[in-house]
Amino acid sequence: MRTRRNRINTSNCATRNYRLDLAYDGTAYAGWQVQPNGPTVQETLERALEKLTGRRVLAHGSGRTDAGVHAEQQCVSVRLPVRPRLWSPRQLQRALNALLPQDIRVRRSALAPPKFHARFSARSKTYRYQIFCGPVMNPFLRRSALHHPAPLDLKAMRRAARLLTGKKDFRAFSANPQRPVQSGVRRVTACRVEKKGPMIFIRIRADGFLYKMARTMAGALIQVGQGRMSPEELAEFLRLKKRTARVETAPAHGLFLERVRYRAR
Amino acid sequence: MRTRRNRINTSNCATRNYRLDLAYDGTAYAGWQVQPNGPTVQETLERALEKLTGRRVLAHGSGRTDAGVHAEQQCVSVRLPVRPRLWSPRQLQRALNALLPQDIRVRRSALAPPKFHARFSARSKTYRYQIFCGPVMNPFLRRSALHHPAPLDLKAMRRAARLLTGKKDFRAFSANPQRPVQSGVRRVTACRVEKKGPMIFIRIRADGFLYKMARTMAGALIQVGQGRMSPEELAEFLRLKKRTARVETAPAHGLFLERVRYRAR
Repeated sequence: MRTRRNRINTSNCATRNYRLDLAYDGTAYAGWQVQPNGPTVQETLERALEKLTGRRVLAHGSGRTDAGVHAEQQCVSVRLPVRPRLWSPRQLQRALNALLPQDIRVRRSALAPPKFHARFSARSKTYRYQIFCGPVMNPFLRRSALHHPAPLDLKAMRRAARLLTGKKDFRAFSANPQRPVQSGVRRVTACRVEKKGPMIFIRIRADGFLYKMARTMAGALIQVGQGRMSPEELAEFLRLKKRTARVETAPAHGLFLERVRYRAR
Repeated sequence: MRTRRNRINTSNCATRNYRLDLAYDGTAYAGWQVQPNGPTVQETLERALEKLTGRRVLAHGSGRTDAGVHAEQQCVSVRLPVRPRLWSPRQLQRALNALLPQDIRVRRSALAPPKFHARFSARSKTYRYQIFCGPVMNPFLRRSALHHPAPLDLKAMRRAARLLTGKKDFRAFSANPQRPVQSGVRRVTACRVEKKGPMIFIRIRADGFLYKMARTMAGALIQVGQGRMSPEELAEFLRLKKRTARVETAPAHGLFLERVRYRAR
């Protein structure tokens, strides 16, 4: 499938590689990646690119976000043919924002080196999980934060967050993938729990994420904050290298892909 | 109409007066007040109250918000019969939040003195108008801020805002009401323009607002910020005491009822 689509893109014509930085409200989408059930962000972007270029264009995202997950910065690489029209990054951004729905915006657009690939060139990604801890939900945050009416034990959450930092096998914090992964080892370079007024933010930066890893780490940290799991138990689950039913996955609508970092060129 | 409905409320049974502080995302509503085209916040709240008490209950808001306008604090007074059940403010809040849709929340609930009336007892109301001034709209603010891609002249806006402060006849900044008002005089005690990152906030506090006055003051200030109207022209429009087509009304989705203040008891 991939080979066939790539062949269309690189067929007999010169192309130019672009990096697009997208922000999207994921509420209305079945995630990033093209799939049969419901519209996806990738599909919506690819349709707009096809309208502009008259060709099928494949958009590579830095990673897949699940249904309902948001992005403040999702990096995408696209190769566009230079004919019949060579798009300047600025023209491309404007034309795409005119075609895309209001819940997807191209925040930046730039020419990228020929070998740049939004997924394979990525050095790290940062996810942020948002929790609203007031007794009554703020109606303006209902699509972008989990409502947790009771306070959470921040000290325990921070202790657990430190145990989740480092180069480890994270299969205990991944959903059972459709295809088994070759390695569950990822390097989590930061896992922090911050409080600001009624909000709690869990920020996780890693060189890569397994399927549902960010939401499952957030879910486990919330369980620790509720006193339903100790940081030590969490460390033990990690050592199992296998997902158990005790570890919960936090709902999608609280999760944001916050930032993608690339190697300096 | 008012008399008939009031009669239902105060009929042969003892009642208790409550103050409810609501927050709502106005996107899905045809404004506060009950009306034929589309659901309103008042209607949604009154239905929930009827479910709880088994009687028709009239909810008095501090003022009407237009279709699409939001509220961080809309004060409401309701008289509930003490039989068959006397509701504690906390029970009432919980029961209402369980019945109301997620975009309307009861933030606080309290017993109020018998003569308290959300509208007639109000001392002042503060509206906030939100403008996002970045070149590309933030998709998470699309329902709660006006997108103005170009920068605005803050200095001119602030000068104009000062001219709009004080006890004046504001008919020039009101939409033509269905019924002519007895007096267009209102006391604007604060009109401030603030900038925070890409956001501009216009805050207007007054002892009362004419129909669409907050949105029209915001619209005029935006015209000043765009250089399309000078602060002096704005002052002249004010002196006309009549609405002209030159003064524009800003779109509803940028406006929040931020706070309602009451006399100390």
